[in-house]
Parts: sequence; structure tokens; C-alpha cells
Amino acid sequence: MSSPKVGIIMGSKSDLPVMQDAADVLKALGVDYEITVVSAHRTPDRMFTYAREAAGRGIKVIIAGAGGAAHLPGMVASLTHLPVIGVPVKSSNSIDGWDSILSILQMPNGIPVATVALNAAKNAGILAAQIISTSDEVVTQNLIAFKDELRKKVEESAAEMEK
Amino acid sequence: MSSPKVGIIMGSKSDLPVMQDAADVLKALGVDYEITVVSAHRTPDRMFTYAREAAGRGIKVIIAGAGGAAHLPGMVASLTHLPVIGVPVKSSNSIDGWDSILSILQMPNGIPVATVALNAAKNAGILAAQIISTSDEVVTQNLIAFKDELRKKVEESAAEMEK
Amino acid sequence: MSSPKVGIIMGSKSDLPVMQDAADVLKALGVDYEITVVSAHRTPDRMFTYAREAAGRGIKVIIAGAGGAAHLPGMVASLTHLPVIGVPVKSSNSIDGWDSILSILQMPNGIPVATVALNAAKNAGILAAQIISTSDEVVTQNLIAFKDELRKKVEESAAEMEK
Amino acid sequence: MSSPKVGIIMGSKSDLPVMQDAADVLKALGVDYEITVVSAHRTPDRMFTYAREAAGRGIKVIIAGAGGAAHLPGMVASLTHLPVIGVPVKSSNSIDGWDSILSILQMPNGIPVATVALNAAKNAGILAAQIISTSDEVVTQNLIAFKDELRKKVEESAAEMEK
Amino acid sequence: MSSPKVGIIMGSKSDLPVMQDAADVLKALGVDYEITVVSAHRTPDRMFTYAREAAGRGIKVIIAGAGGAAHLPGMVASLTHLPVIGVPVKSSNSIDGWDSILSILQMPNGIPVATVALNAAKNAGILAAQIISTSDEVVTQNLIAFKDELRKKVEESAAEMEK
Amino acid sequence: MSSPKVGIIMGSKSDLPVMQDAADVLKALGVDYEITVVSAHRTPDRMFTYAREAAGRGIKVIIAGAGGAAHLPGMVASLTHLPVIGVPVKSSNSIDGWDSILSILQMPNGIPVATVALNAAKNAGILAAQIISTSDEVVTQNLIAFKDELRKKVEESAAEMEK
Amino acid sequence: MSSPKVGIIMGSKSDLPVMQDAADVLKALGVDYEITVVSAHRTPDRMFTYAREAAGRGIKVIIAGAGGAAHLPGMVASLTHLPVIGVPVKSSNSIDGWDSILSILQMPNGIPVATVALNAAKNAGILAAQIISTSDEVVTQNLIAFKDELRKKVEESAAEMEK
Amino acid sequence: MSSPKVGIIMGSKSDLPVMQDAADVLKALGVDYEITVVSAHRTPDRMFTYAREAAGRGIKVIIAGAGGAAHLPGMVASLTHLPVIGVPVKSSNSIDGWDSILSILQMPNGIPVATVALNAAKNAGILAAQIISTSDEVVTQNLIAFKDELRKKVEESAAEMEK
Repeated sequence: MSSPKVGIIMGSKSDLPVMQDAADVLKALGVDYEITVVSAHRTPDRMFTYAREAAGRGIKVIIAGAGGAAHLPGMVASLTHLPVIGVPVKSSNSIDGWDSILSILQMPNGIPVATVALNAAKNAGILAAQIISTSDEVVTQNLIAFKDELRKKVEESAAEMEK
Repeated sequence: MSSPKVGIIMGSKSDLPVMQDAADVLKALGVDYEITVVSAHRTPDRMFTYAREAAGRGIKVIIAGAGGAAHLPGMVASLTHLPVIGVPVKSSNSIDGWDSILSILQMPNGIPVATVALNAAKNAGILAAQIISTSDEVVTQNLIAFKDELRKKVEESAAEMEK
Repeated sequence: MSSPKVGIIMGSKSDLPVMQDAADVLKALGVDYEITVVSAHRTPDRMFTYAREAAGRGIKVIIAGAGGAAHLPGMVASLTHLPVIGVPVKSSNSIDGWDSILSILQMPNGIPVATVALNAAKNAGILAAQIISTSDEVVTQNLIAFKDELRKKVEESAAEMEK
Repeated sequence: MSSPKVGIIMGSKSDLPVMQDAADVLKALGVDYEITVVSAHRTPDRMFTYAREAAGRGIKVIIAGAGGAAHLPGMVASLTHLPVIGVPVKSSNSIDGWDSILSILQMPNGIPVATVALNAAKNAGILAAQIISTSDEVVTQNLIAFKDELRKKVEESAAEMEK
Repeated sequence: MSSPKVGIIMGSKSDLPVMQDAADVLKALGVDYEITVVSAHRTPDRMFTYAREAAGRGIKVIIAGAGGAAHLPGMVASLTHLPVIGVPVKSSNSIDGWDSILSILQMPNGIPVATVALNAAKNAGILAAQIISTSDEVVTQNLIAFKDELRKKVEESAAEMEK
Repeated sequence: MSSPKVGIIMGSKSDLPVMQDAADVLKALGVDYEITVVSAHRTPDRMFTYAREAAGRGIKVIIAGAGGAAHLPGMVASLTHLPVIGVPVKSSNSIDGWDSILSILQMPNGIPVATVALNAAKNAGILAAQIISTSDEVVTQNLIAFKDELRKKVEESAAEMEK
Repeated sequence: MSSPKVGIIMGSKSDLPVMQDAADVLKALGVDYEITVVSAHRTPDRMFTYAREAAGRGIKVIIAGAGGAAHLPGMVASLTHLPVIGVPVKSSNSIDGWDSILSILQMPNGIPVATVALNAAKNAGILAAQIISTSDEVVTQNLIAFKDELRKKVEESAAEMEK
Repeated sequence: MSSPKVGIIMGSKSDLPVMQDAADVLKALGVDYEITVVSAHRTPDRMFTYAREAAGRGIKVIIAGAGGAAHLPGMVASLTHLPVIGVPVKSSNSIDGWDSILSILQMPNGIPVATVALNAAKNAGILAAQIISTSDEVVTQNLIAFKDELRKKVEESAAEMEK
């Protein structure tokens, strides 16, 4: 197995049931990844080190998921020049997810975070694969096949319902 | 000038004052782009053609801005395997921008759109450059220098305020 | 049975429990319909074909239901001159339904979607029947009788509670 | 001039700057209309009479605009079997338009209101024309031409921007 | 038993579990009431008759509860000079109750509705009793005793927790 | 002039431009009132005294207006058995008025506040007059005449627009 | 045991399951506290006495939790010069917690309340300890150790996930 | 002048018009402060150094203001055991301030931020003084006098309005 190209991090291990989807789809699309816990608020030094060293280790894209006042994606984006994908996680005392969405999405000019839908770690994984695919023909073909699968499943549902 | 790597599209020419920022920052970061109007609702065929042909023309990333019930970013994402960055534009009869944010952000599983903050076309441009930089050392260096500039400006503000 | 006058489509077969209400009320009101799955994001070509060909097949009204960043009603409206009724569906990772409501309701000038309440597929069916009734006396009488039934049920409830 | 097919009503004459767009687009699309003020809260009897008699006078569709706690569209819908289109108007002490949107959109099962976007009286007019067009070939052709105009204007904008 | 002074009405019998609280507290405070179902949308004539005749029957205050696009309180207020208390009911397809709150609260100038909290039919009953009490010394004394009971219960909780 | 029946209070003199409407409509309806500033947060003792003594001075209804975290209406309601009408005022750093609306409306069971629309001091005045009218025939007749005026103005607008 | 430095109060004993966390973390951090029920709306006199006498009894910080139209934290802050920490509690008929958040947070200039996240009584306790620690070296050391514990737990989660 | 006890920081010099109020009220209350710019996203290293060294320099409380996805207050709180007060600033592309409020308020358990109202830097300054006053009798007396001034100004307004 080659070295990971995508780093998946999350603010708490309780985010894993949501964030696992990112790992699964990356695997399905043939993109190597690593996955761990990095908390902006409880392990700020670890976050600094992770974000600062990721590019040097060969990571091309970082996926960061967090809930509530979700600072992890934005802070990682401030510490690296790599593209960072943010996954707003709807945690227990969240206010319907608005807090994590706005904390991740509304980054100031200069420091973007590529935000996906609430709990949409699967889309974060696909987006990371799309980024990798801009210079990787195998992943490109996998994405094209993946899209084709989505289409076929809908067509099957349609055929079934029309009966 | 080489062929454009980033396609910037917007739903209406009235979005240009916002979307121009994407073009400007891409130019500053040394990334070639093209820019035009493509409306999901008023020119659906044009949108189909644009999205389906973009990859073949060498486009690596598409930035799509739209306001209100903003369907352009998501529909383009449905029609290409390229990464698509969505810019929610706060248009005149928008409901404080919530409509464009949610229409772009809340894409279903399978079809991600990399959403940036309301009106944040500049961040869309930077994000596009970050994606290009995953296989382009020159753009990488430009991004690192750009981040350094951001830092210096804050330090100057700080020095001034501390006086 | 005559050819269908109302086309009911939905973005995913998971929307059927909500959208079935439209079919049921159309049947009760004596309006023929067809029902199938058409995904804006996963089957864009199918959507194009469906929307472009509906009028030619004798369809007079399209009811489209979708959740999250719900682009199906608006995109169908962009592809046909027929009236399109949109049903915001409250799907699992929806943000309390706000995303589907705003994605369907806030269409730009030129391309209306007749939006009904969250999950209100029954009202979408009644509205479609009202549209058909503008040139169909039988459906008109059915609608008048339907309204009368609603009134009677409330009067029965009232009589019961007053006891 | 033939008798009006669309009745445009609004809760206050202060809504006219918004609601005039409905009249203008209906005229452009060749649909006869009437326009007046009917307040649900200040002239409930007038509203009853208007709604109850509209169908008898040959009206096929009613467009009702109102702001704040906007009860006019829903109450008219309760009093007629005709399709009713509701236009949420963003009035002065409105809470960003949310009050009129929700008061019009969230009708209970049995009594639909075809809701359009905030202040989108133009779309209400187009939707009324679409409904009329289900049994009127001239209006159908006008709508098709209207859509074509929308497309051409975008293509002109695009050509200009690409220069 | 004397003739009722407070009329409690609700848009649907499904609102009874919430609205019963108004009846219970009125009984406890010694105020006679009547209770029934009146739907603005399904029985508009019944609503007209109820609202127009209430004052003549000796009713002094009307409590009206409704969910979703809740037009009952405001329409009743438009049809009588009596004070009307509105209870926003959080119904099944409500959007977190925002729809009923805004539909009841945001009445235009000239036609007030005394709105209470979401589902707060008990407070509607107390408020009705307070209105009656402005000319009824017995109800005044009952309200003073009721307030005293509230205080005592908190003091008991406090004593228990402090142990 | 008889002693005042309605007490109008506001949290800050900056609320006067909004709250003056309550005084004006009460005067027009023939109800005596008093008006002053009482701040829950800056003059809590004054608020206690005002609320505790109001009934003894012959006040029948209190209208309290406040912005932001608006505690004045609810706290006054906790200190008196009189009906209290709350006017949410949209102050400068308010969050679109949501803060004052929710702070006034969402009172716990036992302590109602009759809430009117954002900035709707005029409606607060009318509601106070309606409460007074439950035992005052003159005010009742004034309210009936007032409603008639509202109707006439709409009918004039309608006649003008129909021309 | 020394006299309590932190007073924990809540509007209802039903808030205890949330508010207990404040007590638990204060105990863990070595800060003495007292805990009781004080209702702004049902026991206003008790609230006055509590807030006015707290400083004299040696209390240094007050933590106040309440739901709905949560007036307790702000009213206590108006009655004492001590720092007051507000805990918005998501109660049963709350509107997703927005009402308690805005009622506590949006205090007018002059009377701050230190607001923590929805239901975050634990953070209120930590914040109270931080305030005490500004003049207490033992509590300072306890806070430093507490932060270290948080860090270690994340590092353990990370190590486990990386396996 | 003694060494500063309160550190005021802000994410951008454009926040100064709002944040200056904190400095002014601290000066009026006799509390020494320092003020500078520290950006979480553009100068993360500077933020780390500032937050880690503040306690060692004798700072007792940190006030941090920021807009949009406001990470500065929460990240500083993660890096120090000092109490941190967060000021949500309503910046230009903010979504009505909701983004900065939720990004600052909704911190996870373990890392509190004492949040004040939108743009309420004055209240942040008062709160900081209240914290200092827990071990400083002079500041305590200044706060008591400050509260008295607030009271007097309202009483003057009241006297004037009652005339």
C-alpha cells in the first residue's frame, strides 16, 4: 500500500460513526487515507503539528469533521496550504447543526474551507477523491464508474416504481 | 498563456461584482481561468454542454456562483466528475442568503459541492488554486507566499494598534 | 383508463412514503397520473428527457418532490413550459426541512415553481387537480365535493367536542 | 378585451409596487386579468364575497399577495375551489420575510396555496399563465417564446463576458 | 352555571391535547368557558358565524389555537372587537413551530392577536382569566391565590434541593 | 380626566418612537393611560415598585415594550396579576428582532405575556382597549367604529386601484 | 468545608439534570458551591433577596440556568455586581433552544451575562472555577491539570483509532 | 501605571470600532488593559504565543472579538487556563451575526468561552472588570458606582417622559 494521500481527522471519537463514511468511499474509489482524532480545543498542539506536517508527509487533502463550535477545519486550513474539506457533524447539544455548519462555512477571506452538507462525510470523501483525480487517471476512472453506479440504482428504482 | 485550468461560471451577470474576486485571486496565484455566464434555469442546455465538456477542454476545477434557489453548482456537479466549488451569492430578494447557502451546501450523498462562505468568491478562487497546487509546485509556492502576506498584514495592524 | 394528465416524480424512492399522498388524492379526485423516480443529481439526462417530453405525452402538470438541496422541481421547471408543483420533503440529514423549502421556493424570476408545505404531497395532488379543473368540469365537481367533505368532518368533530 | 381569467388581489395598496409585476407579465403573455385590494383582516366580508364569486365571474386562477401574518392567500383558498397562488411580500415590520413565507406556505392538508418566492409576483403571473395554458394554445406559445427570450438574454450576457 | 365568558376554539380536534390546558386552568380559576372546533380553512362560514356572534352571546374573550399556517386567531380577530388570544400549536409537519408562531404573532396594525408561547394553552387560559378579572373581583382573588401557589411550589423545590 | 387605566412602560427612552403608537391609539379610542420608562435591568427596584403598585393605583392593563433580551414584560407579569401586553422592539444590536420576540413570547406556564408583533405598539394599544372594553361600553363602541374605519380605507384603496 | 464561593441557581427543579454538571465539575476542581431553585417568574422576591445578598455571604460568582424566556440570569445580573454565568437550558416547549439562548445572551449594554453553550452547565462550572482561579493558586493548578486530562483522553482515542 | 490585567484582542483591525468599547469601559472602571490584533486564521503562531504567554505576563482575563466563523475566542480558550470572554462581531458578510454568535457560544464541554451579546464589547469590558473585582475592592466599588449611574440615567429619562 502506498502512503496516504488523504488525512481524515475528527474532533472527537464520537464523530467516528459519521466520519467513517469518508474512509469507506475513499477506499472504494482507490484512494489511500489515514484516519485519527485531532481536537482543536483539547489538543491544540497536536492540531498544530498535524496540520503543519501533513504536506511534508505526502498528504494532498485533509478532511476534518467536527460538531458545535467546530473550529478544527478552519484552524487546520489556517496552518497548511493544502485544500481542507470540512464536515459539519450534528452532535448531541448542537442547535440543529446550524452551529457546526456556520462555524465551518463562514471562514474569512484568505482561508477557505471546502464545506459539505451536514453529516455528509461520504461527500467529503468523494470530493477528496475528485481533488486527487485532477492528477490521477485511475481515480478519475473510478469516479466516472461511481457516478454511473448512482445512475443505475436510480433507474432500477424508477423501473420498479413504474411497474 | 496556457489553456485555462479553472472555469468560473455564474447564474447571472449581476453576480459578476461578487464573482470577479475569484478571477482576481486566481490571476494573482498564477492559475489560468475562463469566466462566463451559465444559468441553470434559463439556459439548461448550455449548462449541460458546459459541464459535460469542461473536463475534455482541460478544465480541472469549476467554480459556480449563484443566488436564491441556487441550482447551478449542484447541477454542474451532477454532470461532471470534476471538483465543483459553489459560491452562495446574496442576491436582492434572497432571504439573508440562507436560500443560496442551503441550496448549494445540502447536496445529497454522491454529488458533493465544495461550498464556501456567502459571497466568498475570493475563497473559491484560493480553494481552486489549492486543488491545482496538489500537482503544481509553482502554485504551491504562490499559495505559501500568499499565506505569508496575510500574516504580515495582520502583524502590521497589530504593531500599529499596540502603539 | 385515459392517458395520465399529471406526472408525479421524486428524487429518490425513499421519498415515496411522502409522495404517495399525491397519487392517492389524485385518484380520489378522478385525475389520471403516472409516478416514477427521477433524480436531478444522479440521473440528469433522465430528468432532461422526462421534462422535455412530458408536454408531448399529454402531461398537463408535473409534481416533483425532493429533499435537502432539492433541485428537481426547479430544474424540471426550467426544462418545460408546464406548471410544476414542488413538494419539499424532510429527509434524514435535512436541516429541519429549511433546505428543501428554500431550494424549491426561492426560484429566480422567470421560472416559477408552485411550492406547497413541507411534506404536503396531498396538497400538491389537490393543487394539480385544481389546475386540471380549470378546463374539466368533472374534476371541478369532485373538488367541490372534496371541500364539502372536509367541512363535514370538522363539523362532526365540533359536535362531538361540544357534547 | 375578453373577461379576466386571473384575479390579482393584495392585502394593502402598499403591496402594489411588488404585485404590479404579476399584472405586467400576464399582459405580456396575453392573459386578461383584474387587480384590486382585498384585506383578509380589515375587509373579511369583501374577501368572502370576492373568493366565493370569483369562479362564477369566469376567473380561473387567483393570485393573492400579502405580508407579515399573511392570511389572504390561504383564506381565499379555503373559500374557492380555484387554484390560488400566494406571493409572500416583504413588508416593513416583517421579520426578513419569514413571517409571510411561512403564513402562506404551510397550509394544512386539504387547502393548498401555490407559493412562489419572496416578492416574486412576476413568477406568480407566469405560473398563472402556465395554468391557463393547460387549455389555451396561444398562451402556451407565448410561454415558449418567453422562455426563449430568457435564454437569449443569458447567452448575450455570456458572449459579452467571454470577450 | 352562568353563561360562558371565554370561548375556546381550535382548528382541529387533534389540537385538543394541547388546548385542554386552557379549559382546565379556566375551571380552576372560576371562569366559565365553552370549547369547540372551528377551522378557518375547512369551515370558513362556521368561523364567520362563530366570531361574529360571540360577543352577542356574552363571550368576553376568545382563545384560538392552531398549527402550521395558523390563520384562525387572526381571522377571528378580524371578525370581532373582542380580545383574541392566539395559541401557536406545534403540529406534526410544522417547521419547529416557527410557522404557527409567526402566522399568529405578526398581525398587521389594526388587528391584534394576544399571542402566547408555543403550545402554551395554559397561559392562554390564565391570560383570559386576567382579562375577565379586570371587572371581576372573585377571579382577581383566584389569580392572586394561583400566583401564590406557584411561589410555594418553587419554595418547596428549593428547600428540598438545598437539603 | 379620570385616572389612567393603562400603564405604558418601556425599557429605554430610545423605545419611545415605537411605543408612542400605543399612547396615540389609546387616546383615539378614549382610554386614559400613563407612560414612563422602567428598565428591568438598570432599575430593578423601580420595576418592582411599579408592577406591585399598579393594580392599587387603578391600572387595569400594563403595556411593556423592550428590545434585545427583553425581560421587562415577563418580569412585570411575574409581579402583578394584571394582564401584561409585551411589545418586542427591534433595537439596534438586535438579531433581526428574534431576541426580543422570543424573550417576551416564550414565557413559562403560569406567567403569560400577551405578545404582539415586532414593533407593533399600535396593536398593543388596541388590545389594551379591547381588554378595557370587556367592561366598558363606550370603548366597545369606539373599537367598533375603529374597525369600520379600517374597512373603509381598504375599500377606498380598492375602488381607486380598480379604476 | 469553607463557605461556598459559587452559587448555582436554576429556574425550576426540572433543570437539575442539566445543572448538576456545574456542581460536579466545581467539586472536581476544588471549588465550594451552593445549589438551589430560584424562579424569576414564580418567586421574584426570592430572586431579589438571593441576588442582593449573595455578595455579602461571600459568593464570588453566580451560575444561573433557565429555559424558554430565560430571565433569571439577566435579572440576577441586574441585582448584583458579581459576575453572572448564564446556562441556556433546552426545555420541553423550547423552540430548539433559541429562546433560552437569545433571552440570556442578548443583554443590553451595562448588564453582561457570561453565556455558555446550550445545556453546557459543565462549562459554566469550569468558567466559574476560572474566575475563582484569578486569585486562587490551588484552583489554577486544578484547572491546568484538568486541561491536561482532556488532552490525554483525546490522545488515547487517537492512538486507538490509528491502530 | 501597573501592568495590564486584561488582554483585549481582535481578529482584524476592522473590529476596532466595536472592540474599542471594551477598552473604554475598562478604563472608566479603573482596570488596566492591553489591546492588539491577533488573527486565529492568518496568524496562528502569534495566537498560540499570545494565549500561552498571557498568564505569565500577569493577564487575568482575555477578551477576544471576532466575526464570521469566529475561532479566536475558542482557540485562545483552548490554549490558556484564564477565563476568556468572547465578543461576536457582526462583520460585513456575516449572516446577520448568527455565524459569529454560534461559533463563539457553542464550545464543547471542557473549554468554555464567556459569550456576550452581538457587538457587545462594552459588556465584555464590564464582565472582565467583574472578574477582576472578585479579588479587588477598588474595582468592586467602581462597579457598584457604575450600576448606580445606570439607574440614575433611567430615572432621569423617566422623570422627563412623565412630564
